[in-house]
Amino acid sequence: MYLLKDNFAKKKSLQMRICLIGAGNLATQLGMALSEKGHQVGQVWSQTSKSAAKLGTKLNSSYTTEIDSLISDADIYIIAIRDQSIAPLLASYQWGTKLVVHTAGSIPMSILEPYCQNFGVFYPFQTFTIDKKVDFEQIPVCIEASNSQNLEILSQLALSVSQNVRHIHSGQRQQIHLAAVFACNFVNHFYTIAKELTEEKGIGFDILKPLILETAQKAVNQTPKSSQTGPAIRNDKAVMEKHLEMLAGHPDLQNIYSQISQRIIHTHKL
Amino acid sequence: MYLLKDNFAKKKSLQMRICLIGAGNLATQLGMALSEKGHQVGQVWSQTSKSAAKLGTKLNSSYTTEIDSLISDADIYIIAIRDQSIAPLLASYQWGTKLVVHTAGSIPMSILEPYCQNFGVFYPFQTFTIDKKVDFEQIPVCIEASNSQNLEILSQLALSVSQNVRHIHSGQRQQIHLAAVFACNFVNHFYTIAKELTEEKGIGFDILKPLILETAQKAVNQTPKSSQTGPAIRNDKAVMEKHLEMLAGHPDLQNIYSQISQRIIHTHKL
Repeated sequence: MYLLKDNFAKKKSLQMRICLIGAGNLATQLGMALSEKGHQVGQVWSQTSKSAAKLGTKLNSSYTTEIDSLISDADIYIIAIRDQSIAPLLASYQWGTKLVVHTAGSIPMSILEPYCQNFGVFYPFQTFTIDKKVDFEQIPVCIEASNSQNLEILSQLALSVSQNVRHIHSGQRQQIHLAAVFACNFVNHFYTIAKELTEEKGIGFDILKPLILETAQKAVNQTPKSSQTGPAIRNDKAVMEKHLEMLAGHPDLQNIYSQISQRIIHTHKL
Repeated sequence: MYLLKDNFAKKKSLQMRICLIGAGNLATQLGMALSEKGHQVGQVWSQTSKSAAKLGTKLNSSYTTEIDSLISDADIYIIAIRDQSIAPLLASYQWGTKLVVHTAGSIPMSILEPYCQNFGVFYPFQTFTIDKKVDFEQIPVCIEASNSQNLEILSQLALSVSQNVRHIHSGQRQQIHLAAVFACNFVNHFYTIAKELTEEKGIGFDILKPLILETAQKAVNQTPKSSQTGPAIRNDKAVMEKHLEMLAGHPDLQNIYSQISQRIIHTHKL
């Protein structure tokens, strides 16, 4: 894995014509970032006409629900749809020599090989929701390609939207995606649990917000291991037992509480 | 629970003489915040002379390891030591009519009752480490007191360091502390797990930082429930199975992965 750098002037002059296949969270945020950086999203494809129209209108591009009507002159075809839909979509079109990439964290690049001659992966590593604009410049973009020319094209495209571009192979990308399930998806579910617990006692979620932000900031500025606080790292059995009692109405949370406390104790060799 | 407001001019004119009992993470950060706001930390007590001296010097106050040498003229005695040390410390001194508060999330106010006539709780709700300065103004401070006069004193002291002061009873405070174990301590351990997973494949922790910050920011700006992403909320069984395979070397993480994914599926009624 290495961080790619490029000449800024070169980046600015590069313009690509893009066919964007998908209109969900990632397609929307990526399409907007590409447009803003001067690329032309020539077409949006989506399975549903409503979402195709919505994103097409937003990006000032044509849109379609017909896979046979894809534009033929795009420099790159970016597939940003659900993982399980990628193979069927690939099989439904003759890609020829077109450069086709997917954007999925957990799908190997090799899924493209039976269908395409020029292919790769363009994986922006962030959590996207459709209506929340993100600062793409700071997002790590992990790229991989079938050959060095394609890697160069993907590298230029990635560097035009992000300062944080990395050449990462499929095995590493899948591991990053797994790590993100813990650092983002499970973390967010724990925020949800904390919100439920405070609201049970008539306390608003607001009280947790400074703590949530400080915890993230500390892990990033220091390391998470050195930032660990709480009853488990103090091996404070009285508090942990009290908490398990308080969770009597939530056996699932009792289980999670015990397991993670044990893992903290074990990780820090208490 | 209600949010307390006060007249700013009144806050600025108030100065208290404080005896700070403890010299750990919280005592250090609280002592510094109180000093900065013009209060006088007259004395620091700690069990170990090294930490008493360190914090005493930092706060320009006297320090001691002898409980019998506590100053007698402080307006308030703030106990910021380990939970299990609070009762023994309380029992080792004649408090008389002195106003004594503890700062612990999970200890009820009633622990003070056998030993003190004037007492309360002053609980700054944040994760503290000794060398990381925090912006105390934004930290929720939860207060509780044995009577209305003491509550007024605590309220004034709290409002002098924070804009976010709440009158919260012991049951609510214990629940907030439990919620914080999920939203802070367990979250931080998941950052630690994510770091381990990326490093296993030779990838630096840096790649996770934008994701960690965005996840926290989104939960705070929207709600965590509406911000949920990932394979579990898509009920994407293929990815979840793949992840469990990838965790084959970590049976503890497989267990945690399955349980939390199930809870996400259940919470969102998929």
